[in-house]
Amino acid sequence: MTGEPRIGDAYGELLRDALAVATGVGPRPLAGGRLPRPVIEVIERDDGLINGVPAAHYLDGPQDWQPHDHRAVDRVRGDTLDIGVGAGRIALLLQARGVPVTGLDVSPGALQVCRRRGVRDLVHGTVDAHAASGRRYDTFLLLGNNLGLIEGRERAPAFLAALAAMARPGAQVIAQGTDPYGTRDPVHTGYHEDNRRRGRLGGQLRLRLRYRELGTPWFDYLVCSPDELAELVSGSEWRLAEVDDRDAPYYLATLRLSA
Amino acid sequence: MTGEPRIGDAYGELLRDALAVATGVGPRPLAGGRLPRPVIEVIERDDGLINGVPAAHYLDGPQDWQPHDHRAVDRVRGDTLDIGVGAGRIALLLQARGVPVTGLDVSPGALQVCRRRGVRDLVHGTVDAHAASGRRYDTFLLLGNNLGLIEGRERAPAFLAALAAMARPGAQVIAQGTDPYGTRDPVHTGYHEDNRRRGRLGGQLRLRLRYRELGTPWFDYLVCSPDELAELVSGSEWRLAEVDDRDAPYYLATLRLSA
Repeated sequence: MTGEPRIGDAYGELLRDALAVATGVGPRPLAGGRLPRPVIEVIERDDGLINGVPAAHYLDGPQDWQPHDHRAVDRVRGDTLDIGVGAGRIALLLQARGVPVTGLDVSPGALQVCRRRGVRDLVHGTVDAHAASGRRYDTFLLLGNNLGLIEGRERAPAFLAALAAMARPGAQVIAQGTDPYGTRDPVHTGYHEDNRRRGRLGGQLRLRLRYRELGTPWFDYLVCSPDELAELVSGSEWRLAEVDDRDAPYYLATLRLSA
Repeated sequence: MTGEPRIGDAYGELLRDALAVATGVGPRPLAGGRLPRPVIEVIERDDGLINGVPAAHYLDGPQDWQPHDHRAVDRVRGDTLDIGVGAGRIALLLQARGVPVTGLDVSPGALQVCRRRGVRDLVHGTVDAHAASGRRYDTFLLLGNNLGLIEGRERAPAFLAALAAMARPGAQVIAQGTDPYGTRDPVHTGYHEDNRRRGRLGGQLRLRLRYRELGTPWFDYLVCSPDELAELVSGSEWRLAEVDDRDAPYYLATLRLSA
């Protein structure tokens, strides 16, 4: 056997189990069929780096959020598209505030978890597919590091164009990113250098998620500096209007439609 | 890139980080260089199953142990070899009770963690290598599921012979195992069937441990029923004297030198 996972909705499965653990409803993961075990998301990078991250944070209520999440939701106005809605923690708060919010995700399991938790307006798919629906928004959210969905130089123009196609006049994108270049850990700096040698952005991570027997295909996920983001945005329908880096290395970037 | 880890002392590195988190001394793992992250052991099985397990349990004090661990240490007498000493949780309790205990591990990092935590008598290596040292013991401990180190039908005779070579008259082995056959989860029952088709014991897991950029080579680790254990022990210098399965599916097996 090869140790390779079966391709499937690893992310949805892990959210489903995390919800079962959080609510006590439904089958929960057990060690030896007896002792509760926490739900851990395994994130593999293509250079062999691996990290396990407890999944409970996807269901965190506002009291457990990072400060930048609060500042992000306070900037929301109008019809809002929560891109990569996950388990719906952001969408649920917005709904409670009376904001019309649509949750978008490529994971069917994530959408099921959102539905069970009470998120009302949910769409399965990518931003490109959703752009064809004719729906229009005033705010696009990319929180929980989901600025990463812009992937890199190749994908960014189409990604930003899809958002522009769904944008009402005066629309904004609020995206949370992480500046990856503060580290001196050779595991990361070496990876950044290898990336650049191959014509990629330093923090253009090639990842897959794994949970139990399932794994996603490998995908690019971008961790970039605000300067790199400015470069990616230039030439698009958007301009980088503001960067709030009060929680550096985490930051909130606000894009606005150019004129 | 292939996503393959670099072969190294993954287990030792993870214990070192777990100790840093527990004590607040030394560099600790951070997300984005800022937020503390728990130390997670990643365990891969050769069919693609993966599990992340928080590493903190390796440093648990007796108040957090499972009941079978307490019953195991209460059975200890005489010079004791703690096989797969890990971060030393069992050895530290025995030392405190005045039991002469030697900690054995193949992981140099694990032994460093043991030393820092105060375990005094430590040996690097396998039971085979240590058997050549001339040291003799009255009790051999295989706790924390370390009955698994018996691996399977091929390895068991040599493993048990190495213990017998180090055994004083009347010596005992106290081994903690887990009966794997109570589950109906197809991820496990299918694996058991595949194993049997290949002439292996059903719960003869092929695993590797991963932590950050490091991974161990693939190795066999046995999860077996008491009946299977009896079969492995028969014909060796040992006999299966008792099985305590009060915490089923976990059990404590006691082996004694035959006649």
